[in-house]
Amino acid sequence: MAELTHFNDQHRAKMVDVTAKAVTARTATATGRIKMHPETLARIHAGTMKKGDVLAVAQVAGIMAAKQTSNLIPMCHLIPLTGVDIHFTDNDHDCITITTTVKTKHVTGVEIEALNACQIAALTIYDMCKAIDRGMIIENVHLVEKAGGKSGHFKFDAPTE
Amino acid sequence: MAELTHFNDQHRAKMVDVTAKAVTARTATATGRIKMHPETLARIHAGTMKKGDVLAVAQVAGIMAAKQTSNLIPMCHLIPLTGVDIHFTDNDHDCITITTTVKTKHVTGVEIEALNACQIAALTIYDMCKAIDRGMIIENVHLVEKAGGKSGHFKFDAPTE
Amino acid sequence: MAELTHFNDQHRAKMVDVTAKAVTARTATATGRIKMHPETLARIHAGTMKKGDVLAVAQVAGIMAAKQTSNLIPMCHLIPLTGVDIHFTDNDHDCITITTTVKTKHVTGVEIEALNACQIAALTIYDMCKAIDRGMIIENVHLVEKAGGKSGHFKFDAPTE
Amino acid sequence: MAELTHFNDQHRAKMVDVTAKAVTARTATATGRIKMHPETLARIHAGTMKKGDVLAVAQVAGIMAAKQTSNLIPMCHLIPLTGVDIHFTDNDHDCITITTTVKTKHVTGVEIEALNACQIAALTIYDMCKAIDRGMIIENVHLVEKAGGKSGHFKFDAPTE
Amino acid sequence: MAELTHFNDQHRAKMVDVTAKAVTARTATATGRIKMHPETLARIHAGTMKKGDVLAVAQVAGIMAAKQTSNLIPMCHLIPLTGVDIHFTDNDHDCITITTTVKTKHVTGVEIEALNACQIAALTIYDMCKAIDRGMIIENVHLVEKAGGKSGHFKFDAPTE
Amino acid sequence: MAELTHFNDQHRAKMVDVTAKAVTARTATATGRIKMHPETLARIHAGTMKKGDVLAVAQVAGIMAAKQTSNLIPMCHLIPLTGVDIHFTDNDHDCITITTTVKTKHVTGVEIEALNACQIAALTIYDMCKAIDRGMIIENVHLVEKAGGKSGHFKFDAPTE
Repeated sequence: MAELTHFNDQHRAKMVDVTAKAVTARTATATGRIKMHPETLARIHAGTMKKGDVLAVAQVAGIMAAKQTSNLIPMCHLIPLTGVDIHFTDNDHDCITITTTVKTKHVTGVEIEALNACQIAALTIYDMCKAIDRGMIIENVHLVEKAGGKSGHFKFDAPTE
Repeated sequence: MAELTHFNDQHRAKMVDVTAKAVTARTATATGRIKMHPETLARIHAGTMKKGDVLAVAQVAGIMAAKQTSNLIPMCHLIPLTGVDIHFTDNDHDCITITTTVKTKHVTGVEIEALNACQIAALTIYDMCKAIDRGMIIENVHLVEKAGGKSGHFKFDAPTE
Repeated sequence: MAELTHFNDQHRAKMVDVTAKAVTARTATATGRIKMHPETLARIHAGTMKKGDVLAVAQVAGIMAAKQTSNLIPMCHLIPLTGVDIHFTDNDHDCITITTTVKTKHVTGVEIEALNACQIAALTIYDMCKAIDRGMIIENVHLVEKAGGKSGHFKFDAPTE
Repeated sequence: MAELTHFNDQHRAKMVDVTAKAVTARTATATGRIKMHPETLARIHAGTMKKGDVLAVAQVAGIMAAKQTSNLIPMCHLIPLTGVDIHFTDNDHDCITITTTVKTKHVTGVEIEALNACQIAALTIYDMCKAIDRGMIIENVHLVEKAGGKSGHFKFDAPTE
Repeated sequence: MAELTHFNDQHRAKMVDVTAKAVTARTATATGRIKMHPETLARIHAGTMKKGDVLAVAQVAGIMAAKQTSNLIPMCHLIPLTGVDIHFTDNDHDCITITTTVKTKHVTGVEIEALNACQIAALTIYDMCKAIDRGMIIENVHLVEKAGGKSGHFKFDAPTE
Repeated sequence: MAELTHFNDQHRAKMVDVTAKAVTARTATATGRIKMHPETLARIHAGTMKKGDVLAVAQVAGIMAAKQTSNLIPMCHLIPLTGVDIHFTDNDHDCITITTTVKTKHVTGVEIEALNACQIAALTIYDMCKAIDRGMIIENVHLVEKAGGKSGHFKFDAPTE
């Protein structure tokens, strides 16, 4: 079985040494979705158009969270990000899908940053709609693709549900 | 349709005014799970026993994240938490379930704190195992129960999947 | 001459002791404006309508900054805010005025929080428009009014310019 | 009209992609001033000499704030700063002028960092003197000069007031 | 043997539940010292008088660190501090002693905040003098006294060295 | 006498300009110890084995603190760390020694990060055991060794106690 790399000889967690790794351009895309009551989505749609834009707040929250990743995930390296973008799509019924893309030119990848942006954007939607729908579910949060770096290209292979 | 409460008369987001709300004891429990390759769970099990404890790191990350919630979720009030606890269970095959309980004695609830702790604990597991399994999925993150406060008791009513 | 209260007997800064002060509801309103090239304001107007809403980002930034005030202003107490709101108006020519209102129920006032939200909202506008206008000026940032607390009501008395 | 660069194809804010930009040495100088009651300035002068140095605290606050810029301004990249300095001058009557210089060797400029340091230094002065003067005004905050990077040299061209 | 209170039934760390504890005024005083080369202390003395005040920076750092304690110490509750003060004394030869006093009116004590302020003030002295003295030693950091709260008064009983 | 480098021509603190310094691999090792009642150490030993691992929490706290150093120490540059590790040893009687190693590939050294990780790990031990032992002392915190960068190799030369 492959070894986990985050532990030292005392079997305690460490921040893995990446001093010798090469600086390369890296990208990671993550996704996740938040399932809600159909009326909640209708309310968000309506708001986006005229009463107040929930997704604009989620967008800002996700981008700012990407920059906070190393303060939240203990063994994560601080990575100066060179780009963060977030897109929302929905099924026009009861679910908003969030897709985040994070870029850097650094010695480690930005998968965790992309996933974190995704989760925080989803949780911001939850926060802003919770007064009308506390039963929302955040689900299917996973890495979609990553490129750059020694471990090479990764593309998520969806399990047959 | 009920109105979202987070928008002002310019249709822009605001932090809702809770100045007049009563200070009461409040609890929120949230859950979520991370699905992984069976070998990854085996590796975490093995590590917990002798090579390094992934879940101990996730535990600390989740608790610290609960305290950071208002810095991450834009319209969320800062709430001095009076207790945070996290439990892990697994299906002995391919999935770890995280349950977080957060408490306060304050003017607003701590649902978002509980959900945030859950997500960050899950993402920490992802981070520490990503070298052997990049396809992990964080799913089914939702509020389980909340008590205290004017909006009263909430208990999650699982949808028939 | 009145004494500054932020210094100890070694003539070094301290966080003033407010342990004995009463918890009361407090409000502070601050304002500031950012002057820009008329084309920049036209561009923000256009964007708000269809291409991307600069002020929605500034709104979120200002509210989040209010919560960070005690981490930025060294002698400032951490205050759990109970409400933050921001409004934008403009002169339809070359200037956007920002007005922030911050509330709490605590032992000290929230003037600094309101001023900080104002400055950060203004600086966010600057950041998002700097590619087309680096000469913008942030000006006239001051407290408008404060209420609650022992020092009583304050209302800004505009100097004759 | 020039396009704002901070929006994506969904007309939502993004952190602009600078992955391909060259690393170069960059400097930015910003300024701002805080106008106060003449007695307040007299009090700061007196303190600097023997009772407690308001400006020493403002200096530290401004420098620390420069490092926090990307956590406050949503679309701002994290930039490892290589130097920050702040100078204070006053008109010996009712106004302190703050000048900040920020340096880096990175892919984007540090204008926002310099402006942020300026505003936070000013707000710290306000905070420490507010017990004796709540009517202070922060004004004329603008970029003075920037050098390095593709957009080239910028020098503020003072408007005829 | 007394049980540690920070662990749950899964033997993992938790933030202890203090929801039911009474709000009372609490104080904690901590101390620590930094030993250095006699020339380094002479240099700090000289600077305090005319070239630049190392201790003024350490003072601000210690106070700001006190406010960050719950973000650094994983199981520590966020406590809105109502007062922080720091004093420096030295033996006029090779050692500066730091004494910090922290106050709150809350459900838990502020020992950790006082100790943290102490350590960060000491480390700031180290940072600012390291170019001339890398061999400085931070030592004897301990709680001096605490008052308020259910566990009652504590006074440090110096061990016979 | 050598000059302190952290002050500007106004005798106020500045973040030293390192723009022109070369990027090189750098390492710093620091140490410190926390002295406690023999029963406290026995309790930590017991916990590590079955009731809850104090040192696992201290490990995470120390690593996360290393990443926060530039937010705590005012004149410290933000340094993207490429590795952090912490080891604990004890004298089997009344003292735990903490050794931290921090790495980067950057323009300045990481001594302060190593010392900060050390102090915060020690303080976390204090926090988690304070219910049974408030008299613990953190002592002998110093730099052990640093390598890389213009100032060259440093090795701590223990004073004859």
